[in-house]
Amino acid sequence: MTTSPSVTDAVNRRLRLGMVGGGPGGFIGAVHRMAARLDDHFELVAAALSSDPERSRAAALDLHIAADRAYRSFAEMASAEGARADRIDAVSIVTPNHLHFPVAKAFLEAGIHVICDKPLTTSLDDALALARIARATGLIFGLTHNYTGYPMVRQARQMTEGGELGRKKQALWRTDPAQSGPAGALGDIGTHAYNIVSFVTGLHGEQVAADLSTFVPGRRLDDNVQVLLRLEGGARGMLWASQVAPGNENNLRLRVYGEKAGIEWAQEDPNYLRFTPYGKAPVLISRSGPAATAYAKHATRIPSGHPEGYVEAFAQLYTDLAEQISARLAGRPPAPASLLVPNVEDGVAGVRFISAVLESSRHNSSWVNLPPS
Amino acid sequence: MTTSPSVTDAVNRRLRLGMVGGGPGGFIGAVHRMAARLDDHFELVAAALSSDPERSRAAALDLHIAADRAYRSFAEMASAEGARADRIDAVSIVTPNHLHFPVAKAFLEAGIHVICDKPLTTSLDDALALARIARATGLIFGLTHNYTGYPMVRQARQMTEGGELGRKKQALWRTDPAQSGPAGALGDIGTHAYNIVSFVTGLHGEQVAADLSTFVPGRRLDDNVQVLLRLEGGARGMLWASQVAPGNENNLRLRVYGEKAGIEWAQEDPNYLRFTPYGKAPVLISRSGPAATAYAKHATRIPSGHPEGYVEAFAQLYTDLAEQISARLAGRPPAPASLLVPNVEDGVAGVRFISAVLESSRHNSSWVNLPPS
Amino acid sequence: MTTSPSVTDAVNRRLRLGMVGGGPGGFIGAVHRMAARLDDHFELVAAALSSDPERSRAAALDLHIAADRAYRSFAEMASAEGARADRIDAVSIVTPNHLHFPVAKAFLEAGIHVICDKPLTTSLDDALALARIARATGLIFGLTHNYTGYPMVRQARQMTEGGELGRKKQALWRTDPAQSGPAGALGDIGTHAYNIVSFVTGLHGEQVAADLSTFVPGRRLDDNVQVLLRLEGGARGMLWASQVAPGNENNLRLRVYGEKAGIEWAQEDPNYLRFTPYGKAPVLISRSGPAATAYAKHATRIPSGHPEGYVEAFAQLYTDLAEQISARLAGRPPAPASLLVPNVEDGVAGVRFISAVLESSRHNSSWVNLPPS
Amino acid sequence: MTTSPSVTDAVNRRLRLGMVGGGPGGFIGAVHRMAARLDDHFELVAAALSSDPERSRAAALDLHIAADRAYRSFAEMASAEGARADRIDAVSIVTPNHLHFPVAKAFLEAGIHVICDKPLTTSLDDALALARIARATGLIFGLTHNYTGYPMVRQARQMTEGGELGRKKQALWRTDPAQSGPAGALGDIGTHAYNIVSFVTGLHGEQVAADLSTFVPGRRLDDNVQVLLRLEGGARGMLWASQVAPGNENNLRLRVYGEKAGIEWAQEDPNYLRFTPYGKAPVLISRSGPAATAYAKHATRIPSGHPEGYVEAFAQLYTDLAEQISARLAGRPPAPASLLVPNVEDGVAGVRFISAVLESSRHNSSWVNLPPS
Repeated sequence: MTTSPSVTDAVNRRLRLGMVGGGPGGFIGAVHRMAARLDDHFELVAAALSSDPERSRAAALDLHIAADRAYRSFAEMASAEGARADRIDAVSIVTPNHLHFPVAKAFLEAGIHVICDKPLTTSLDDALALARIARATGLIFGLTHNYTGYPMVRQARQMTEGGELGRKKQALWRTDPAQSGPAGALGDIGTHAYNIVSFVTGLHGEQVAADLSTFVPGRRLDDNVQVLLRLEGGARGMLWASQVAPGNENNLRLRVYGEKAGIEWAQEDPNYLRFTPYGKAPVLISRSGPAATAYAKHATRIPSGHPEGYVEAFAQLYTDLAEQISARLAGRPPAPASLLVPNVEDGVAGVRFISAVLESSRHNSSWVNLPPS
Repeated sequence: MTTSPSVTDAVNRRLRLGMVGGGPGGFIGAVHRMAARLDDHFELVAAALSSDPERSRAAALDLHIAADRAYRSFAEMASAEGARADRIDAVSIVTPNHLHFPVAKAFLEAGIHVICDKPLTTSLDDALALARIARATGLIFGLTHNYTGYPMVRQARQMTEGGELGRKKQALWRTDPAQSGPAGALGDIGTHAYNIVSFVTGLHGEQVAADLSTFVPGRRLDDNVQVLLRLEGGARGMLWASQVAPGNENNLRLRVYGEKAGIEWAQEDPNYLRFTPYGKAPVLISRSGPAATAYAKHATRIPSGHPEGYVEAFAQLYTDLAEQISARLAGRPPAPASLLVPNVEDGVAGVRFISAVLESSRHNSSWVNLPPS
Repeated sequence: MTTSPSVTDAVNRRLRLGMVGGGPGGFIGAVHRMAARLDDHFELVAAALSSDPERSRAAALDLHIAADRAYRSFAEMASAEGARADRIDAVSIVTPNHLHFPVAKAFLEAGIHVICDKPLTTSLDDALALARIARATGLIFGLTHNYTGYPMVRQARQMTEGGELGRKKQALWRTDPAQSGPAGALGDIGTHAYNIVSFVTGLHGEQVAADLSTFVPGRRLDDNVQVLLRLEGGARGMLWASQVAPGNENNLRLRVYGEKAGIEWAQEDPNYLRFTPYGKAPVLISRSGPAATAYAKHATRIPSGHPEGYVEAFAQLYTDLAEQISARLAGRPPAPASLLVPNVEDGVAGVRFISAVLESSRHNSSWVNLPPS
Repeated sequence: MTTSPSVTDAVNRRLRLGMVGGGPGGFIGAVHRMAARLDDHFELVAAALSSDPERSRAAALDLHIAADRAYRSFAEMASAEGARADRIDAVSIVTPNHLHFPVAKAFLEAGIHVICDKPLTTSLDDALALARIARATGLIFGLTHNYTGYPMVRQARQMTEGGELGRKKQALWRTDPAQSGPAGALGDIGTHAYNIVSFVTGLHGEQVAADLSTFVPGRRLDDNVQVLLRLEGGARGMLWASQVAPGNENNLRLRVYGEKAGIEWAQEDPNYLRFTPYGKAPVLISRSGPAATAYAKHATRIPSGHPEGYVEAFAQLYTDLAEQISARLAGRPPAPASLLVPNVEDGVAGVRFISAVLESSRHNSSWVNLPPS
């Protein structure tokens, strides 16, 4: 458990957070705000919550934001905040996906750290451009692939890093983005899916072969995604994502098999990791139980046996980003575990993956190369 | 999902919260603070976090509380806050159990609403006295039996209220308070256990027969509790609670069977309720899925398929108490679902249950009557 | 897996089996016949399947039994078989419970080994008398508590014998005998339940306190059983058995906790045993997987990963009794694992348990002593 | 449950069974014998159990087969049995896969019904030739894809037939043939896997794209199989089969999603089927519980709540083939449910599938057409 002193002690205050997007009725903005509040490292002090100027201001006031920081637009906000002495330490971007690029660009150029919802962008060109800008500024850029905040996903990563799986052979994962809205199963979850497998295994994809389908009449975008994956070192992967599978809510499952062991994790039962060393019986590792690793314990708040869930995993990303930002403010190196948060390069890799999957599907499932990130 | 406008809109500000107890290193104080923050209805503005005056002040300053409200003792705090124009709207009491009584008494007498961790008190006399005081003041008194904040426990309650189980026959529940510390399995979890079964079934206990044991050498208090229960209307219950059961973390399970249906819920897999109408196949109801009731939906933040856990359940109690307090401030009736939070009378019933269990065990498991609350 | 040569090789033939009871429409007779056939150690050659003489003969002919061994009554059968040179090696008794005593007595007195369905008898006097007769004859007497034939129940026994649990503290088990018919939840499953806990733990019960109820109007016998148990050495137990719990089919669950480890087994998912050493993560042991013990492997036919069930567990008892009988015929000691089959003394202990539970319930759940068997 | 009179009543005797292959130490021969015995419709009376003439005879004598029917070779057996008045009604072929063809051919030509283990043959030419022979003789040809004997697989088939899933969209399945020996993951389980999906959905495959790998050094054959499948009517499928996945024993899982509902089944927990109508909560259907269909009840022996497993599923195929043979002998139509057993045409489809998967993998995962069977 995180019993260490607050990561924000270095600056002796909560970090000042701004938000773009996430107005009334939206889901993801509310989640980001809960996540930012949970561990008490951030205070929401500025916002441009809607593309409609008046609704944008009204929504901010409803969230008890001061009138002079309830902005009409992200452009106004980037400009005004960049000029304040008590400017926001970071901005959370929870707009529709196609706005991630211009918003992130504006705040980076205003010298403000960015926390961006996934996917990074809606085109590969934008992704590459944004990565260049981020690199040039040297600012912190966190991408909220929230699955990477789950303690047992981090445990899986740490066990993999530590060689407990041996050479990886297999990675399988699936998910049903029932909630994904109109963006297509791939657009909505493709980066998520690719991110979690590379996060856990540390392997880059080399080639994809994909078969996308659209089952629901009238849908313009795919609602079923099947992907074969060839990873570096000869490992193989398979991904299935569907919006047409009654009986599944979200149901992301990840399995990774290596020469020495296998691991299995299910996002709807996230507090446990099933770990099987070759030739031995499976062990059920719990979040902060006897076999939990440092990464897992770092990402948990309450004792095992009391479940943590989605908001806590999301909050972990905010907490780790708070540590990165605080360390920057204090001129000290950040705690190593805080660096597990996906960054802009991971965002580029996700967009590359989507792009390659679409190309493969257009070419009757031919193998398409993924360039190294 | 809670998509309604903030319950605190009536007063157009966050409610002001104080806290007594919960200093550095404690678990439950940190949980209460997370729970109070999650849904953003409260702001922690005053505290007396430790029985040591200097540590008390220092801990409050660490939490970014203003210096003039970082108190040396709860007595000082009750007195000073009672006199302020911007006094706290409510105090959270997270001290060791034996202090619940004097602290709650002090704040009630200062005219401040109380949110008290369970059990209500450590003696039945104190419990009865506190209930009298609370009644006399007419103030809001919430008791944080956090299991009652889980959406599917509320769903179970609503299905029971709606007659979907028919006449109740059976209630079984168990738990392993591995984390309970030195207070004894009964003292720590007895009120919890009794509370959840009466919360869900709406039935009062009439008689208990109990066999307490102490297995770990040197322990002064029971570490294993077995209770038979006779409930009103002829229903039967059984409770097992143990601190000596390797392989269990918390693992509270609740099963209730009636003439028309049975329900089963496991706190370590809290997002689902198994419901079986007599003569039909079991149905797995999820938190905000197709068969979720209004009570369940009221207590959930994010779509089904993304798990919620302990902190969210705890936060629900705070959110419902915020609604009760806001309604009081605004002179309007509170939303009915907000009244599900256990109150001081439930606290008395819990202390009565503990007292009767101890008496039965001292008399070789004879049946002991539970007076009506 | 049983890859050893057939246990009946010693006599170079299948053992000759007779059956009393189990005529058309009965469930348990058909199960015994499947169990006897599965591992091919027995051949059914004689029967008195019904209390109606003509139906008895006709049913035997339907099972391809020779006309001269299709008997009109068990008395005729015991007498005739006792006089044949090719007499049956053993008789299976699957009559209604109250006939177990006279039938078993008749065959024992005719010098024939007995395989008797549980419970042993319907009165304690009968049970004691039958045990005396069995002892006097020195014949083999197997009692088909079929749960003891499950590989993982035997594994649990072997781990307990081997000290892997340390001193036992807790045993909990439950079951819902939905199929039990008119005999009462206790009469039907009481001996089963008591048998499995003593089989696994090796502990005798010392005292019981019980609360029986009848919920279904018009039922003469209990349909809900709650029992507290004090076992030798200070261990505690709880049993719940119910016929009024919608959502449960059979659902026997057993949990045993000791100083060093805990084990959990569920009869509806019988191929796995959950084992948790104190302070370690739970391990899922499968039937013939890496951590399976010799007892478990002895009782399994096919590789892990392919489920075995009720019939296989039942067949294991027949196979072990075949080994006992073959060894007797061949004048050699039986394989040790074959002696795990419950015997007439276990039957007496079961009847004692029922008797004590009934007495406790009549005396308002007072503790009643169980004399040592 | 099967409470109907024995299917062999028509001929008033057990059917006479012969066996080729399945000598000492073999697994699958022993399973076939258990399966043939379980429901008591067959008697094993003739055998050629080994390719070594003397071991073949000795093994048969060990199984209590009469000396004149303990054959030295399958050729001798086919010839001698074909000439007997009391010839076997059927032969079970459990030899190594490459012998299925000559053995089946010999017995078909001797006028004897065939029960053949899967896969049908090791080449597509053999499969087509065998199908022609079988068709020409008009004899019964059962192929023991044992998963099709599981009650809940049959339930899934019946629900699909009855339109409860609507138009099928998705089929996913996976398995880990840990036990498969040297034949390759595909050769061993490819036909199984393809069979179960076509059995349940009733859909033919149209195209496959496959990526086979060999991870274990020195293995000549694939140990990891990934297949994309396009089924008739636009449905999509994915198959993963692996021999290099620690933590999995057999673990076949099947999921099928249609417009109106989804079903999920796991072979290691075979007594339950998860069924979710679109927009409703999942229902857990048990083998002979409230929502069981006629197909499921037909294939079950004992009440729900008592598990059945692999041997019972296998026995169901024998029981259904006994009904087909008995009906033929009695000159009446067989019970419709008995016709669910896979036949020689299903065997051809399986071999076609393997052949196409190999071709696709050789061509870098290009789509390969599956001709209609």
